[in-house]
Amino acid sequence: MAVDTFDTYLAEKTAYIEEHLVPALEREGVPDALFESMKYSLTAGGKRLRPMLVLAVLEALDKPVERGVPFAVALEMIHTYSLIHDDLPAMDDDDLRRGKPTNHKVFGEATAILAGDALLTRAFSLIAESYREQSDVPARTVVNLIAELGRRAGATGMVGGQMADIEGETKQLELSQLEFIHQHKTGDLLIAALRGGGYLAEASEQQMQALTRYGSCIGLAFQIQDDILNVEGDSAKLGKAVGSDAEKQKATYPALLGLKESKERLASLILEAKAALEEAGLEHSALSPLADYVQNRQK
Amino acid sequence: MAVDTFDTYLAEKTAYIEEHLVPALEREGVPDALFESMKYSLTAGGKRLRPMLVLAVLEALDKPVERGVPFAVALEMIHTYSLIHDDLPAMDDDDLRRGKPTNHKVFGEATAILAGDALLTRAFSLIAESYREQSDVPARTVVNLIAELGRRAGATGMVGGQMADIEGETKQLELSQLEFIHQHKTGDLLIAALRGGGYLAEASEQQMQALTRYGSCIGLAFQIQDDILNVEGDSAKLGKAVGSDAEKQKATYPALLGLKESKERLASLILEAKAALEEAGLEHSALSPLADYVQNRQK
Repeated sequence: MAVDTFDTYLAEKTAYIEEHLVPALEREGVPDALFESMKYSLTAGGKRLRPMLVLAVLEALDKPVERGVPFAVALEMIHTYSLIHDDLPAMDDDDLRRGKPTNHKVFGEATAILAGDALLTRAFSLIAESYREQSDVPARTVVNLIAELGRRAGATGMVGGQMADIEGETKQLELSQLEFIHQHKTGDLLIAALRGGGYLAEASEQQMQALTRYGSCIGLAFQIQDDILNVEGDSAKLGKAVGSDAEKQKATYPALLGLKESKERLASLILEAKAALEEAGLEHSALSPLADYVQNRQK
Repeated sequence: MAVDTFDTYLAEKTAYIEEHLVPALEREGVPDALFESMKYSLTAGGKRLRPMLVLAVLEALDKPVERGVPFAVALEMIHTYSLIHDDLPAMDDDDLRRGKPTNHKVFGEATAILAGDALLTRAFSLIAESYREQSDVPARTVVNLIAELGRRAGATGMVGGQMADIEGETKQLELSQLEFIHQHKTGDLLIAALRGGGYLAEASEQQMQALTRYGSCIGLAFQIQDDILNVEGDSAKLGKAVGSDAEKQKATYPALLGLKESKERLASLILEAKAALEEAGLEHSALSPLADYVQNRQK
């Protein structure tokens, strides 16, 4: 897929996913402030990378993308809740996210905590309720989706990664510890997206393993590029200041490995991600340019 | 069931449930502080009322109580996470819970937020993972359990009730608003316990409706007795000070209806709860003395 074709693909898929976000929230019986707070963060933009991965796996395996929508939206809800909670004063204490005031700045801390809790809860009930009505998704698959998502989002996954990140702020990290943080804080939810797509597309065991390896590689690659952009990115494109990691003496790939070796590591992860696709016969899908996008993104 | 027999029943069931709590947490790959924080609040005592209701429904319908364990433990995880988050400085700002320092007092706010998030997430993955292995629970039932729990615990349920409670602190509430708060903040999770037990026991539609009505009544009754105990309870038995609601000019049943009428309302809710049981032929089960317990408890 050529770069301009892929940009169109990304834009189309983003629009498609964004159409489905707010309608997936419950409205009736929900206090107004809670609903507005959930909606505010869910519609505050972002790359929609996790939903994109679900849809790309379904396409790659010749299945209808509509089937992926409830799971894709649930992933975006979980990603969104994690950002709301991470931004809280007791956590990273951020006032801005993607150029907009963070949730607690607009709605107050109590509402922000509850909006996060409600988005996390809704992710699971959305999967259960939506697929219960769909005859092309067996109940057994729905249970697998929830088990997968719970494991990758919880204490053994994303929440565990965030915990390690917070603990790591006060000490000198080694590369293995930095990788643990990224693998769980970022990688696990990407893997959940890919494997969830795999469950929905009835992927073979070999394909599931390839998707897992691909996800693990692009998860780490995504973070390395994040760290690199914080050194040499364009703050106008990024929508945030660069150089903040070095200022805070944060453990990053460039800080631990240097810029040159970080870029080599990034390139080799993308190669490995593509090798995984090839193994499973998925190299002609959008998952391939998606890997390039992770490597080359400037924002 | 006689009172002393029922006390023994409660003690036995509590011990049975408590055995299953910590083993249901994930340990491998979980940062120590996160695990300890989750375990601290999960094992900090409490009535274990929600798990008890699950087991009582299974017994009432002559099904093995073991079948209820994963769902019962998941409910207790959700109840526990809600207490951790409610106690945070941005919410009710409580230093003590059941006579012990609250989670954030021991582990810090960031860890307390994450421990709550992880317990909520684990509740769903526990249900999916545990029942996936059990041949006596069809996948369709597991999906129903998760849909029910999500709806009752989230924005339309418990989290919505907590939001309304926080909003209500700054205004004069009417009785209907107070009932909305209690119905969702407390009642919905009790209803989830009862209906979840019903799904697991393959209850009839009529029985499901009766269990829902019973849960709605005892949920409200539970809160009225809470309010009454805050007026005339024994602080030694309660393990907390009495009179604090009046001091804070909090909207309560005694404040809105007077003590006498509150007690009458309580008694009539318990009668209605029992009528619901009778309709469904469940009046000889432990659910009947459980209703009396809600009315008569002194702590």
